Amino acid sequence: MISSPAAPCAFGTHRVLEPAGALPQSAWRLDNTPVARANELLCAVDVLNIDSASFAQIAAQWNGDADAIAAHIRETVATRGKQHNAITGSGGMFVGRIAAIGEARADRASLAVGERIASLVSLTLTPLHLEEILAVDVATQRVRVRGSAVIFATGSFAKLPDDIDLDVALSVLDVAGAPAQVRRLTAPGQTVCVIGADGKSGVLACAQAKTRVGPAGRVVGIVPRADTPGARFVADAGYVDHLIVADARDTLAVLDAITAALPALADLVVNCVNVGGTELASILCARDEGIVYFFSMATSFTAAALGAEGVGKDVTMIVGNGYAKGHAEVALQTLRERPPLLAYFTARYGARP
Amino acid sequence: MISSPAAPCAFGTHRVLEPAGALPQSAWRLDNTPVARANELLCAVDVLNIDSASFAQIAAQWNGDADAIAAHIRETVATRGKQHNAITGSGGMFVGRIAAIGEARADRASLAVGERIASLVSLTLTPLHLEEILAVDVATQRVRVRGSAVIFATGSFAKLPDDIDLDVALSVLDVAGAPAQVRRLTAPGQTVCVIGADGKSGVLACAQAKTRVGPAGRVVGIVPRADTPGARFVADAGYVDHLIVADARDTLAVLDAITAALPALADLVVNCVNVGGTELASILCARDEGIVYFFSMATSFTAAALGAEGVGKDVTMIVGNGYAKGHAEVALQTLRERPPLLAYFTARYGARP
Repeated sequence: MISSPAAPCAFGTHRVLEPAGALPQSAWRLDNTPVARANELLCAVDVLNIDSASFAQIAAQWNGDADAIAAHIRETVATRGKQHNAITGSGGMFVGRIAAIGEARADRASLAVGERIASLVSLTLTPLHLEEILAVDVATQRVRVRGSAVIFATGSFAKLPDDIDLDVALSVLDVAGAPAQVRRLTAPGQTVCVIGADGKSGVLACAQAKTRVGPAGRVVGIVPRADTPGARFVADAGYVDHLIVADARDTLAVLDAITAALPALADLVVNCVNVGGTELASILCARDEGIVYFFSMATSFTAAALGAEGVGKDVTMIVGNGYAKGHAEVALQTLRERPPLLAYFTARYGARP
Repeated sequence: MISSPAAPCAFGTHRVLEPAGALPQSAWRLDNTPVARANELLCAVDVLNIDSASFAQIAAQWNGDADAIAAHIRETVATRGKQHNAITGSGGMFVGRIAAIGEARADRASLAVGERIASLVSLTLTPLHLEEILAVDVATQRVRVRGSAVIFATGSFAKLPDDIDLDVALSVLDVAGAPAQVRRLTAPGQTVCVIGADGKSGVLACAQAKTRVGPAGRVVGIVPRADTPGARFVADAGYVDHLIVADARDTLAVLDAITAALPALADLVVNCVNVGGTELASILCARDEGIVYFFSMATSFTAAALGAEGVGKDVTMIVGNGYAKGHAEVALQTLRERPPLLAYFTARYGARP
């Protein structure tokens, strides 16, 4: 039912070269041959949007040198047939145009060769073939390339909107899960704490949270510095009621700051940082029986599990799911409905001359 | 508010030797001096119950040799002042007797020196001093020792019951979160899938699940082999309606088996295995908008997050929290209310002549 000799596997196992029997995400190496098999979509890729935790790790390894980062990515893709960071375990997404549509795809009638799309599945499971790396933009964590990628039958992707700048849409779709999940998990009057409120997913999370909790609720943003564009923006736009400057790895400093700022702990804590060691601060900011939502790919499962147990904290900890029904539309709509947010994303992530 | 010069930190940071500013769980090395500071409980330890993932890793490294495992544990505790497995990131728990009660403890009046207790916080954050390792029981993952351990103000522990054999109570309390969380997350008529149904937490999860879902619900157990004591027991006791034999790392085999056995996917999937690489199988066994509860310490955060996104699966993935209000009592009660389960645990984990 999953696969048959006539149709390649819906999950893409027919592209796994090693180890045998693995799924593409856990595979070491994928077959990145640039053709569309029966249920596949082949895309001409021009941009890779590297996951924030992964890019930070690679950039740190090469002291932010763009050429060295490019060589690192070239080597990873040549070796593994995908952009899969072995240290962080994370990937990113791509943008490109549909180049070929497998003849057995259910969505065949709604697609056209040449349409501009963005992948909404991780690069860690996406067969990728690079002809050339044109430029690495360290500021936006964006890599311009010429190459090809494959989307499987179960892989999700979004057609890019006409009304939003391409680069802006791409940067938002990369973290589309965050605003969609925050929207689901919040209710009027609640207190929401966003750790890493100044990053891309953090800003979107604050914007959705503030709308949802309403005037009776509170949104608290925790940022490492007050003078970054993201920190200034969430404060100026009114997406946070309190901005706390603290290193999220300094658990006790965070707890002291949040208990000083708030009469009670948060109903929902959203972790959007891209560094490790922030699990316990996240847990301690949540009220008893509250929710801690880990969107950060730098989260350690055991640090979270044992951290909560170690301090006897009865909270529900959720693994950030990059996919939620309709998440691409929610993310884009979050921008459309908030002109200042759209302006901020355009200034920060939009195409530059 | 967290600490003052007069009272040591409620989280135990006063015991952290390195790195400075860390909390005990994330610290490399703790001060394991066997004294009770003002808000601490000092215990004479006689048993370490090593976490299943950790014990499996250590045992594999030393080919199951008890002496080598003992030397490994001795070395870890001597180096770090705690039993913290650097590879799995996990610890376990201890059992012992109260040896000294800090004069500033709020629970001072309800405690007595000599009372038998079990720690309900991880050994990864518990200052531990070993005088001697007496025996390593590879079958029960239990290590008999002479030593001392410290419980902090926020650390939880359970007084051991009089009506249940000590070793049995200990083995149950070690995984007390599992039955408590399953009890919360299930409702009559639901379908629950327990992956690793033959292990300690898996058996307890099945027992609670079957009671909660009732005759109209279904419990499916997935086990690597049908002939283990645990697999035979859950089937014979009627705690599972279907027993599926599959390697949980073989994602497609698990999915094929569960779709063959059930008319619909599970409302709740509970992952209780002690090996890595089972995240995607867990995700695929859950229905759309279902819950996947990862109790296994071998869970990879990124494999779960990217796995769900990669197959476009809208599920809520929860990080197993070893603590839940009243979990020790729920776990012991799970045994008391089920004589066959108590008999099974007694035969398998109870004291032997």
